[in-house]
Amino acid sequence: MKDLTATEFLDKEDVTALIIAAKKRGKLTWEGIAQGIAMSPVFTHSACMGMNAFPPDKAAALVALLDLPEEAAEVLSESPNKVFAQTVPTDPCIYRFYEVVGVYGPTLKALIHEKFGDGIMSAIDFDMTLDREPNPKGDRVKITMSGKYLGYNSW
Amino acid sequence: MKDLTATEFLDKEDVTALIIAAKKRGKLTWEGIAQGIAMSPVFTHSACMGMNAFPPDKAAALVALLDLPEEAAEVLSESPNKVFAQTVPTDPCIYRFYEVVGVYGPTLKALIHEKFGDGIMSAIDFDMTLDREPNPKGDRVKITMSGKYLGYNSW
Amino acid sequence: MKDLTATEFLDKEDVTALIIAAKKRGKLTWEGIAQGIAMSPVFTHSACMGMNAFPPDKAAALVALLDLPEEAAEVLSESPNKVFAQTVPTDPCIYRFYEVVGVYGPTLKALIHEKFGDGIMSAIDFDMTLDREPNPKGDRVKITMSGKYLGYNSW
Amino acid sequence: MKDLTATEFLDKEDVTALIIAAKKRGKLTWEGIAQGIAMSPVFTHSACMGMNAFPPDKAAALVALLDLPEEAAEVLSESPNKVFAQTVPTDPCIYRFYEVVGVYGPTLKALIHEKFGDGIMSAIDFDMTLDREPNPKGDRVKITMSGKYLGYNSW
Amino acid sequence: MKDLTATEFLDKEDVTALIIAAKKRGKLTWEGIAQGIAMSPVFTHSACMGMNAFPPDKAAALVALLDLPEEAAEVLSESPNKVFAQTVPTDPCIYRFYEVVGVYGPTLKALIHEKFGDGIMSAIDFDMTLDREPNPKGDRVKITMSGKYLGYNSW
Amino acid sequence: MKDLTATEFLDKEDVTALIIAAKKRGKLTWEGIAQGIAMSPVFTHSACMGMNAFPPDKAAALVALLDLPEEAAEVLSESPNKVFAQTVPTDPCIYRFYEVVGVYGPTLKALIHEKFGDGIMSAIDFDMTLDREPNPKGDRVKITMSGKYLGYNSW
Amino acid sequence: MKDLTATEFLDKEDVTALIIAAKKRGKLTWEGIAQGIAMSPVFTHSACMGMNAFPPDKAAALVALLDLPEEAAEVLSESPNKVFAQTVPTDPCIYRFYEVVGVYGPTLKALIHEKFGDGIMSAIDFDMTLDREPNPKGDRVKITMSGKYLGYNSW
Amino acid sequence: MKDLTATEFLDKEDVTALIIAAKKRGKLTWEGIAQGIAMSPVFTHSACMGMNAFPPDKAAALVALLDLPEEAAEVLSESPNKVFAQTVPTDPCIYRFYEVVGVYGPTLKALIHEKFGDGIMSAIDFDMTLDREPNPKGDRVKITMSGKYLGYNSW
Amino acid sequence: MKDLTATEFLDKEDVTALIIAAKKRGKLTWEGIAQGIAMSPVFTHSACMGMNAFPPDKAAALVALLDLPEEAAEVLSESPNKVFAQTVPTDPCIYRFYEVVGVYGPTLKALIHEKFGDGIMSAIDFDMTLDREPNPKGDRVKITMSGKYLGYNSW
Amino acid sequence: MKDLTATEFLDKEDVTALIIAAKKRGKLTWEGIAQGIAMSPVFTHSACMGMNAFPPDKAAALVALLDLPEEAAEVLSESPNKVFAQTVPTDPCIYRFYEVVGVYGPTLKALIHEKFGDGIMSAIDFDMTLDREPNPKGDRVKITMSGKYLGYNSW
Repeated sequence: MKDLTATEFLDKEDVTALIIAAKKRGKLTWEGIAQGIAMSPVFTHSACMGMNAFPPDKAAALVALLDLPEEAAEVLSESPNKVFAQTVPTDPCIYRFYEVVGVYGPTLKALIHEKFGDGIMSAIDFDMTLDREPNPKGDRVKITMSGKYLGYNSW
Repeated sequence: MKDLTATEFLDKEDVTALIIAAKKRGKLTWEGIAQGIAMSPVFTHSACMGMNAFPPDKAAALVALLDLPEEAAEVLSESPNKVFAQTVPTDPCIYRFYEVVGVYGPTLKALIHEKFGDGIMSAIDFDMTLDREPNPKGDRVKITMSGKYLGYNSW
Repeated sequence: MKDLTATEFLDKEDVTALIIAAKKRGKLTWEGIAQGIAMSPVFTHSACMGMNAFPPDKAAALVALLDLPEEAAEVLSESPNKVFAQTVPTDPCIYRFYEVVGVYGPTLKALIHEKFGDGIMSAIDFDMTLDREPNPKGDRVKITMSGKYLGYNSW
Repeated sequence: MKDLTATEFLDKEDVTALIIAAKKRGKLTWEGIAQGIAMSPVFTHSACMGMNAFPPDKAAALVALLDLPEEAAEVLSESPNKVFAQTVPTDPCIYRFYEVVGVYGPTLKALIHEKFGDGIMSAIDFDMTLDREPNPKGDRVKITMSGKYLGYNSW
Repeated sequence: MKDLTATEFLDKEDVTALIIAAKKRGKLTWEGIAQGIAMSPVFTHSACMGMNAFPPDKAAALVALLDLPEEAAEVLSESPNKVFAQTVPTDPCIYRFYEVVGVYGPTLKALIHEKFGDGIMSAIDFDMTLDREPNPKGDRVKITMSGKYLGYNSW
Repeated sequence: MKDLTATEFLDKEDVTALIIAAKKRGKLTWEGIAQGIAMSPVFTHSACMGMNAFPPDKAAALVALLDLPEEAAEVLSESPNKVFAQTVPTDPCIYRFYEVVGVYGPTLKALIHEKFGDGIMSAIDFDMTLDREPNPKGDRVKITMSGKYLGYNSW
Repeated sequence: MKDLTATEFLDKEDVTALIIAAKKRGKLTWEGIAQGIAMSPVFTHSACMGMNAFPPDKAAALVALLDLPEEAAEVLSESPNKVFAQTVPTDPCIYRFYEVVGVYGPTLKALIHEKFGDGIMSAIDFDMTLDREPNPKGDRVKITMSGKYLGYNSW
Repeated sequence: MKDLTATEFLDKEDVTALIIAAKKRGKLTWEGIAQGIAMSPVFTHSACMGMNAFPPDKAAALVALLDLPEEAAEVLSESPNKVFAQTVPTDPCIYRFYEVVGVYGPTLKALIHEKFGDGIMSAIDFDMTLDREPNPKGDRVKITMSGKYLGYNSW
Repeated sequence: MKDLTATEFLDKEDVTALIIAAKKRGKLTWEGIAQGIAMSPVFTHSACMGMNAFPPDKAAALVALLDLPEEAAEVLSESPNKVFAQTVPTDPCIYRFYEVVGVYGPTLKALIHEKFGDGIMSAIDFDMTLDREPNPKGDRVKITMSGKYLGYNSW
Repeated sequence: MKDLTATEFLDKEDVTALIIAAKKRGKLTWEGIAQGIAMSPVFTHSACMGMNAFPPDKAAALVALLDLPEEAAEVLSESPNKVFAQTVPTDPCIYRFYEVVGVYGPTLKALIHEKFGDGIMSAIDFDMTLDREPNPKGDRVKITMSGKYLGYNSW
């Protein structure tokens, strides 16, 4: 009986595969797709990978833009199960971000406490951008994160 | 014979303890200390924690500012051994940064490849700032990273 | 030079030791201590263990109640570094809570998504109580948690 | 010969797939399904996921409600093998519960010992509810657990 | 200030050390100590190691038998924090018990479900004995465990 | 070429699947199957799961009793490769046995050394039974293990 | 719907399989293939395994040399996801390199700091060769690595 | 009785501490020390760290050069216990070498097999040098390893 | 396109499966197979499992003896990738060898250093036999290992 | 109170330290010590390290030979707690033995089953020797293990 219902509905993984195929076929970029639905490239890529949920209107816009099957819109706006590697990834491009967080984590905590009080930066009410910063010594990757400050409760 | 030379020289851990004591005694802030030596708060805190090396003139300025023993200047400009937790830290304020990197790591990689080519953001030729962003719905933590793009070699 | 500043200031661990000694000497209970400073027993125990920060007035009240050294008040209201075991603890009383979270975690997620939308229960804007529930078949432990719902951002 | 008997009987995983498909097809909610069989949403979802066993009459009611194959009733009331992730899950919605248990685990143990004696809260003779608590500053997730107190034996 | 209260009170580890010293000095056996306080050798050894709490009268009897300091009685009847190795111990004598549980764990579960229903053997309302079983081919170690059956709740 | 010989011979996993199917079809119990071949339920279940080897005559008896293909007899009496979970299983019914071994392991070692000398209980020359022990406060699970004492060699 | 696009495009793993088959069929060596496209054997093997990206002209040359499908060229020059074993590999030939890095890692760090300053050897702007060094006592494996020195930034 | 013999003899850790103090006091470099005893800097640093054994004459030369206590010579030529971190070190300077070995390990194995046959590069009959390679685009770190090829035995 | 070349060539795993099938069909023993090709049973079994490479003439002899497809000879003499469990295996027969190495590892090192000098026993230039040693108290397993002594290099 | 009994009795670690000091002072070898008490060097070293228990007469002989305090004899014949590294040791001399067991473990199991039946080699009723085997191509380390065969029980 295994998998007897498996082909009835699309899941997030299926929709990601459909998006990647459409992107390859149309020779599109993530930046272009993001512009096409008026969202940021970071959020757009992340939600296409199944790590975030699109608002329903953006899901519909993406389905139209990439000519995906209509039912994909519902899948794209479902709450995802955010599963990521629990061991530090080996790819050097991703590893360097863990190195930054490892080296500067206690510094970020100390400065948040100094500037805000006893609390954290939210990773839920959060946004991020990535830009190319021209530089005569070699262009730079510029990343900007913004998350709401949340103070601890006492009771 | 163990520890027979232990009290002869200061090490990075000793100097960190001296700095924290001076900061507490003087009721200083990291931001204030950083201004006092004309460096950024992120780099200043990180180097005070022994995770970065101060340029010699900045080390001397810090020693003067905090009235540390003279030999501390040399220790502050020595190459550190950057040891950080290999398991994800449990403190919620630090954990949220690992969550961000876990969720958005593949996205950052995809966008770097799209905007620059086959390479990475350097974590060595790198800088970072943390700011308080006023917001009527609750102030936000804003973090900006900038690292040199490094393209892979082929040979 | 190691530990040359170690005796100058109390840290959270020292204050926890002073509290436990005062509690033993005074034959007090956590519930009694909590009532004495008009806070909940859960928060009071947790902050006495150094896992939460007391509001300054509560820290002062605790210092007065337990006759702690005056400087302990500042320590009790400092932001803690919340370090907890990353492996599941073996003590059966604590293990059972991990078992509950392991078995029912996906259920809690599914019901939060169904009742609220794509988001989480905050562990920062959060409170909890523990009560004894009389029951003829054997009294029961009743635990109530309440955390603010936080919806994911899209941008 | 591998899998030569595989299609003869449904297993828990098959039945979970059938339930999810029926729920999607019927545009049902977990709360609605739970009401339809007069059980709590927490237990209903958990047992539908194969992490608990339905009492036989409830299993029959669910089969009728969702129009499942008759033999599914027996599967739904079989003792499950409760396998859950031994590493802390990365999904932020589930992770926050581990954070709560990590921060407050020793507190729960201390208060159980103070209120009951040397023992634990049972995770077997146990129930739990999840509610939406309206709040002008943002609605809250309220979770209530109740487990029988079990005192250690001495002999 | 560290350890400023360390010598004020005995803890479980101190009392274990005092018991082992008394046992060595008096050339006693665990079996003899257990008989002296009319408890089983398994429970007596385990509680002397700090892994179980003695009932107050038994704690007093042990203090008298071994001529321990009076305050040890209270320590011996405090709720312990049961910390044991989370990796399988290497000592061959202990390892073999893990091997037994690893090989026969699913069998014990299957037979409990067959003989009792959906539930477990309690490790809290539990007792155990170890005996020497004479045998012409070589004497045997006989271990008997008895734990209350606990059935899962549904709600 | 992969799997080109895969269907030629039954392996232990295949035979386990055939046994489970026959048990379900025949509405049998493990106790009944064990009686049918005059062995203990513990050994019978364990060997049916592929964790022990049946003596050839018992293998033949089982094949006859359950109407298995003839070649299954040889498979059932082959030396198994005893692979079990190296992390502690999460199922509460199995976990409790690890908890018992964790808490009482050093006690069992101390008592074996006291009653026998420097050695271990064999997990090879070993047997075990599981019984239901009636008890007015709730029936109990009774487990009895017996293993040959093996003393260490010196040379 | 799973895998509905799976056969539409080649991925790096497919191309690696095609290369290995062509190499076996043509009885080629890695050294020969590398010469055929005028690159080093180290880089050529690594990029054929999907761990590096070929420059577009080299990808085209390889496709021509090995008679691969035309679309393989694009795949060979895509940025790879460099996934490697996070546990030390068991194969003795590879293990010995980890042993070398384990034993001499701190030495390499100390000498880089002494000869260059506070920084690292880049693993991105990097090349490596492997040669056979004739030696009367047994030929030797000679490996030469060269990576750009990168100095830490301060700000 | 613990440590009753601890001060009687120097061990490798003591001698390392004495060497580092002498180096700091004399404002020496590893390269200078190596020249002073006519050995390579890599081997000299490694043996000073206690990871290799000096030949007796070199140990004596080092003792003379750094004015160490005479008995240090014997310690410096004792077989070391080579203990290194089993998790990949976090220091970026050392981490990059693991990244190189992770990415190129299978390549090194393939080329050794192609150039030599079924065998390995010895990490015992092994030497290594580190040089500064001038380069107009930025100087480079050059590392050369040489290890005897060892072919597998068959019997 | 995945697996499009998969059936073109045999790999080591395929040949192992063919050998096991031939051994079962021919009711052969490993000892008999080893005699048939005039090699030791240890090396023969290990190379049949794909953990060692046969010399070409022995590979041809095995192909003839077991009537394997001709191309299997080349596969049997290819350098293997020796992948073995990095966690200690649970099978009691294999586990006991890890226990021996764990208990006696430091002893073997101490005696090698005492009898040979600073070096190791090679696991590459290595052979091993396993024999049955008759003994009135029960026959014994006798294992003999012989590996070339390799002394560390200094330079 | 901590350590209040610490100096009253010697433990195994103390005795090991006393033996090493006596060996160094007397410029003895393990082989010489073993001959002095008429036991094998392997067992002697292992029991001196606290990993085995000496028979009482051998313990007395060792105390006399090395002029140890009299009470050391009792300690040397106590049952040890055999704790060894659960991760594979990094020292190359010890690592190679794990490599041998990893590569040949399944082979040893297969040959034991073929020569003896379903069972294991005992690591308890076990002995081992290490010899230097002269060889013109380089002397070899020869290790011989002998352990009683133990067959599995069925019941």
